[in-house]
Amino acid sequence: MSPTPDSAVQTVRTYISGHRDAFLDDLAQWLRIASVSVQPEHAEHVRDSARWLAGHLSATGFPVAEVWETDGGHPAVYAEWPSDDPDAPTVLVYGHHDVQPAAREDGWHTDPFDPVTRDGRLYARGAADDKGQVLFHTLGVRAHLAATGRTTPAVHLKLLVEGEEEAGSPHFRALVETRRDRLAADAVIVSDTGMWSETTPTVCTGMRGLAECQITLHGPGQDIHSGSFGGAVPNPATAAARLAAALHDAHERITIPGFYDGVAELTDDERRLLAELPFDEAAWLASAHSRATLGEHGHTTLERIWARPTAEVNGIAGGYQGPGGKTIIPSTATLKLSFRLVAGQDPDTIESAVRDWVAATLPAGIRHEITFSGATRPCLTPLGHPALTAVTRAMSTAFDGATVRYTREGGSGPAADLQDVLAAPVLFLGISVPSDGWHAPNEKIELDLLLKGAETAAHLWAELPGALR
Amino acid sequence: MSPTPDSAVQTVRTYISGHRDAFLDDLAQWLRIASVSVQPEHAEHVRDSARWLAGHLSATGFPVAEVWETDGGHPAVYAEWPSDDPDAPTVLVYGHHDVQPAAREDGWHTDPFDPVTRDGRLYARGAADDKGQVLFHTLGVRAHLAATGRTTPAVHLKLLVEGEEEAGSPHFRALVETRRDRLAADAVIVSDTGMWSETTPTVCTGMRGLAECQITLHGPGQDIHSGSFGGAVPNPATAAARLAAALHDAHERITIPGFYDGVAELTDDERRLLAELPFDEAAWLASAHSRATLGEHGHTTLERIWARPTAEVNGIAGGYQGPGGKTIIPSTATLKLSFRLVAGQDPDTIESAVRDWVAATLPAGIRHEITFSGATRPCLTPLGHPALTAVTRAMSTAFDGATVRYTREGGSGPAADLQDVLAAPVLFLGISVPSDGWHAPNEKIELDLLLKGAETAAHLWAELPGALR
Repeated sequence: MSPTPDSAVQTVRTYISGHRDAFLDDLAQWLRIASVSVQPEHAEHVRDSARWLAGHLSATGFPVAEVWETDGGHPAVYAEWPSDDPDAPTVLVYGHHDVQPAAREDGWHTDPFDPVTRDGRLYARGAADDKGQVLFHTLGVRAHLAATGRTTPAVHLKLLVEGEEEAGSPHFRALVETRRDRLAADAVIVSDTGMWSETTPTVCTGMRGLAECQITLHGPGQDIHSGSFGGAVPNPATAAARLAAALHDAHERITIPGFYDGVAELTDDERRLLAELPFDEAAWLASAHSRATLGEHGHTTLERIWARPTAEVNGIAGGYQGPGGKTIIPSTATLKLSFRLVAGQDPDTIESAVRDWVAATLPAGIRHEITFSGATRPCLTPLGHPALTAVTRAMSTAFDGATVRYTREGGSGPAADLQDVLAAPVLFLGISVPSDGWHAPNEKIELDLLLKGAETAAHLWAELPGALR
Repeated sequence: MSPTPDSAVQTVRTYISGHRDAFLDDLAQWLRIASVSVQPEHAEHVRDSARWLAGHLSATGFPVAEVWETDGGHPAVYAEWPSDDPDAPTVLVYGHHDVQPAAREDGWHTDPFDPVTRDGRLYARGAADDKGQVLFHTLGVRAHLAATGRTTPAVHLKLLVEGEEEAGSPHFRALVETRRDRLAADAVIVSDTGMWSETTPTVCTGMRGLAECQITLHGPGQDIHSGSFGGAVPNPATAAARLAAALHDAHERITIPGFYDGVAELTDDERRLLAELPFDEAAWLASAHSRATLGEHGHTTLERIWARPTAEVNGIAGGYQGPGGKTIIPSTATLKLSFRLVAGQDPDTIESAVRDWVAATLPAGIRHEITFSGATRPCLTPLGHPALTAVTRAMSTAFDGATVRYTREGGSGPAADLQDVLAAPVLFLGISVPSDGWHAPNEKIELDLLLKGAETAAHLWAELPGALR
């Protein structure tokens, strides 16, 4: 493959800067729709978000743009823009249009659903995760047409944008299985990850999987007096604490029997590549708003967040929460746990290992219920795949010839389902950076990088036919 | 001392049954005042409750009835009814007019502050703890006068009814120290405990002390994404859980260094006396609404709840509490702990032991704040004191000659402060039973026992001059 000609680079850039303002207006409009998939009161907003996106994709030029219902869940959006070259490869872009919960009182400086641009950044829930990274593809494909003089893309372009990613994608695999013929592709491009930093462009090569559960513990039939009964019956808040504490041993390894079975351990080469990244622990800690590292002994921070499975307490609650004290043994307590999984781990196996462990660990007198929400499988891109080289080249071109390195992503997405069902390689194209604050208050996206994302997409559609032929 | 004459027993009973309805109406009126001392929004109700009680004591005949302010806290009520016998001993009755928080949605069948009588029971927050047990003294002293034909009691009768007991009595000791001359007494009668059961009258001989704290843990400066950062930085919800779990060892003994220093261990005789009580573990478990016992190894349930110190989690909270999941590492978590203390333990020593232990136990990267609310000292009545014999006889008379046994109370009250400051023996007179549900939804008092309480008080004022002379 020859480098992208300078004239194409220039045309792409000119097109994108000329359409920047209209594009940002569109994105802001979409971000105003509070498509929070885990909160039932926002169900209608998730639907509004799907309708808005389908309309926008039609307006962009996609001849096919449909809202796809899921079985009792939130709708996805599907769009298709066939190439006029019948031999063109087919590419499926994946993203999601639902967002994490957000409330002003969580620490947002402005309304999370009223986007604000300040200092070259756009602040809103979903700006980076994932609406911004979905929408840059609409600008990218138009820039691709402008730069190549084509009326259709050089690839058969498909988009699948789901509405339940933040809820664990409970209906996604079924949707993909049901529609596998229409979704068939030679490669999948997942735009729901990030890159190393504002100045170090990278391509992600893997995502962790996810298993999530809520455990409700029942002790006394009602709150009881801790003076009259304390010290003599099991306390469900204590039991919840002991369960959470028992998740890890003194080396911060997870104690659940069978949890590590099948885990793909890092090779020496992989550890070396990770160690070569310009990792600055102090800067990373600042991005984590944290004061110290803590994790599985014998692994670096990057290994811990990208290549090792974890168990985290996302929420714990039990007993009196108001001001002052209340000397009770509470009736119930709840734990919300999530487990990040790596290649070689299967969410179903983890679910049953967790269920067995919880049942075996709780004391007599504490009843429990445990519910798992939608699981996500881990995913790893085959290194050396020509499509990965194409993504790397397209990104390098957008970033003025910079060296593009490889990372992984600690977060989770349903990429593995696409890999399994469509039997296609999965590649990652994301321009979000760690400071974007995914799932946190004051989520934002860097506007310059957002446009680089569109540029990368524009170059990639030109690159891919050669790479996949 | 000779037994109380049958005629006096009959007069007391007749007086009380004749004034039953008016007494219950008064009690219901008082219970309607939501004097919740730990909730700032109820501060005015605590004051209303004090005013109501002072008015009621005046109406009962106490020549002195005053609202006593505390330094920035809730007011207490003091009343005095001197005997016309200058040689009469002085007795100080202690109780409290504040109540625990209560809300309909906690599981109350009726409004906790709208008393309801059903099947011989009066349901309301504070019915047993402690308004019912304070108010029976007004009926009791009138019955005493009726039975003895006196115009003043046979003892110099004083009442001190505080308004912050459920908040840990933060200003009580200072109040008692400031007013020690007016409070001076030959014996203190604490009416804030219970007895063994509806059919086994007992006198309590000790209460546990209490130390309470809230610990707030700070991890990341804001909630962060558990995929991006999980497994690599300390999670304050996990740290809170580990702290709560580390409170006890595998034998359910408290691990805080120095916690057991000075604890008065039970003698063989004391263990034997406790073992003689007709304890039915299944029935006790039912009263605890629990399915199993769990406590310090090597001790019986009664020993655990009466004579051993404990550590309980009253509340734990951190991270996402809403429906579904949210894959975050939370920024903060809180723990509300309480420690019951026994004779030989001092709340100040315990506070510093807990502070040291928390600071030493939390991992790097987790900041914390710890605040202790008002401490309560443990209290033990000297067995064999003649005033204890008088209480026992008065209660036996009220209960038709039944054998009165001895118990202890697992709960806490500021009795020890009265013992210390006034240098007077502390005795307990309470008729509440375990099923009354102190601090729980649907708190109630048995009306028959409430009136037996008034009878016991009536006989006690006649008994005490002989006993204390």
